[in-house]
Amino acid sequence: MTWQMARRAERLNPSTIREILKITERPGIVSLAGGLPSADGFPVAAMREATARVLRDSPREALQYAASEGYAPLREWVATELSGMGLEADAAHVLITTGSQQGLDLVGKVLIDPGSRVAVESPTYLGALQAFAPYEAEFTAIEGDDEGPDPDALGAARGARFMYLLPNFQNPSGRCLTAARRQALAAKALEIGLPVVEDNPYGELWFDAPPPPPIAARMGESAVYLGSFSKVLAPGLRLGYVLAPPLLYPKLLQAKQAADLHTPGFNQRVVYEVIKDGFLRQHVPTVRARYKLHRDAMRAALEQHMPAGCRWNVPSGGMFFWVELPPQLDATALLPRAVEAGMAFVPGAPFFAGGGHANTLRLSFVTVAPQLITQGVVALAGVLKEALAA
Amino acid sequence: MTWQMARRAERLNPSTIREILKITERPGIVSLAGGLPSADGFPVAAMREATARVLRDSPREALQYAASEGYAPLREWVATELSGMGLEADAAHVLITTGSQQGLDLVGKVLIDPGSRVAVESPTYLGALQAFAPYEAEFTAIEGDDEGPDPDALGAARGARFMYLLPNFQNPSGRCLTAARRQALAAKALEIGLPVVEDNPYGELWFDAPPPPPIAARMGESAVYLGSFSKVLAPGLRLGYVLAPPLLYPKLLQAKQAADLHTPGFNQRVVYEVIKDGFLRQHVPTVRARYKLHRDAMRAALEQHMPAGCRWNVPSGGMFFWVELPPQLDATALLPRAVEAGMAFVPGAPFFAGGGHANTLRLSFVTVAPQLITQGVVALAGVLKEALAA
Repeated sequence: MTWQMARRAERLNPSTIREILKITERPGIVSLAGGLPSADGFPVAAMREATARVLRDSPREALQYAASEGYAPLREWVATELSGMGLEADAAHVLITTGSQQGLDLVGKVLIDPGSRVAVESPTYLGALQAFAPYEAEFTAIEGDDEGPDPDALGAARGARFMYLLPNFQNPSGRCLTAARRQALAAKALEIGLPVVEDNPYGELWFDAPPPPPIAARMGESAVYLGSFSKVLAPGLRLGYVLAPPLLYPKLLQAKQAADLHTPGFNQRVVYEVIKDGFLRQHVPTVRARYKLHRDAMRAALEQHMPAGCRWNVPSGGMFFWVELPPQLDATALLPRAVEAGMAFVPGAPFFAGGGHANTLRLSFVTVAPQLITQGVVALAGVLKEALAA
Repeated sequence: MTWQMARRAERLNPSTIREILKITERPGIVSLAGGLPSADGFPVAAMREATARVLRDSPREALQYAASEGYAPLREWVATELSGMGLEADAAHVLITTGSQQGLDLVGKVLIDPGSRVAVESPTYLGALQAFAPYEAEFTAIEGDDEGPDPDALGAARGARFMYLLPNFQNPSGRCLTAARRQALAAKALEIGLPVVEDNPYGELWFDAPPPPPIAARMGESAVYLGSFSKVLAPGLRLGYVLAPPLLYPKLLQAKQAADLHTPGFNQRVVYEVIKDGFLRQHVPTVRARYKLHRDAMRAALEQHMPAGCRWNVPSGGMFFWVELPPQLDATALLPRAVEAGMAFVPGAPFFAGGGHANTLRLSFVTVAPQLITQGVVALAGVLKEALAA
């Protein structure tokens, strides 16, 4: 055998969630596992019009090689949007990425050496762990409470290359950081010289009130901010963006060139056509309303059916409930029984950089319809009751 | 300042070509610099039909998250196509990538440790150097002649992680390896245990006869093969693919998940709709015919106008002429004068991993119309004559 793999290949591992999704995509399974947005909310008519318009008005430009930075009008749109959120956003420092997952990969490529420490929430987004791990990062998990990571615990992250934060309706926990906590975290991070990489895929999916302004708005050139069109439009287009400080932008851009030359220009132009005249101002509220109904259905089902000793948050936005089972239960061990009972969830343990937390699981409330949510929760509750009785 | 960059960031550098392209995209400049396919050949009508069909028949699937491996029917199509070229191609080992540039990045990520040696042609594709360099590869340039790299020189690559080869109408040299040379290279590589990464973006763009079968067809599980839809359909869709041996496929797939989750499903379904009923069998011959006319126009212009002492190949396919100037001339130094004279080219030096070759340049014959090709060559010849007279 002639191939010799790089050392970092040991840090590449199958995505637990994607492997679970494969098992659970059999017909008849109510999957509360995947983080798939409701396809009912995809703006199909607007996409039809926009693709037709792009292929009528600028087909040659849309189908040709394009700038690595991204489509200029889309970058301007993003900069305006982010400025409205309190960020210092110049289009010159907006990089369009192939989904915000690519933003995480580029950040890792530019900032992480073997052995570099990266601070993360506990739990944190699994896709970020998977993006950073191959660059041989060592993770420092920052504990916290329902309001967010504990600013006093941030001292443990001194000397880390950055802290990765997902402050709005986090995947997996559903947690939304309070304004006071954001302020305290930013102050502490600046004090100890800890840069922040802030990821915001879910911020627009609020139910009652928008989340507080981004942490990056308080951190000047010590923050990178990532956003995505996956949850407000559709994930299959793979469109995200990075706002980076002037020091980092050129290196992220060069890493982007090396990674895929540029994000498909066709997709960028189509999305710009969809959103340029304010479409999201009409569209996103319909997504919020739909997801709020789903959230309420899952909350009611959990309250009615789950056995005593289980605890969960009630998310005020986003896509996920986070459930803590009684400590003697192991969610990974229970998953096959749940699938037999006709439902699927994602075990919580892989979301913890420091391990443990076998008694946690994540439920998505956006992929299936409310009556199926109830059916799935009833099946889960049955499995848990049986396990607790054993 | 709080950011500390990874060591590999030093190996990320601005793309010389992309920087040149920016300068030369002013109106009025005849650019023979960029490797942009002729937009006249983009299948706009077929794209219109296909996008409309995808958004009518499977909008929810096209706009949703999708498998990291790629869209199954497209993977099957690729496997069938590659089998027809003599490769052992199972769809299970085809990975759809965001352009074949991403394939190069994933190969680098999985195979290159800091200090690993990678063998390359001399010259070689600049985008491959840019993909591999950030993983801190050390390059070994393999010299050769018009038939391809010298098999005897391959001994210098013993112990390298792999050799990167672009055998068909190479970017930048236009070189197409002979069948005998392919056979000799495969035999020598197998003998010394040197795996091959074979890249084939241009193979379909032949003018008189198709190129010989791929080197990978002779190497069993010791080769990775990369292909692209950028030159036969359109680059703005960013669709490429990797065929990998069973040992490497899972790691490349995991690297792909970490890099961007999956290539846009919308683009994959649209391209599959375009090509599934044999569209390329009608379409690609029209591209070949157009590019052959362009090639002939550039050949005639070079023969008529270039000063004595300049040499060039006559490519039998692809997109590029490769020009050697008299040794006292420096193509990079002459570029500003060429731009002043109304044309642009790409200096050849950056394509050499080992440096040198300041007296070489690349001319693309596919981006602009034949009469502009002549105008550009006349302008270039004028600059060269002036420099030689000085």
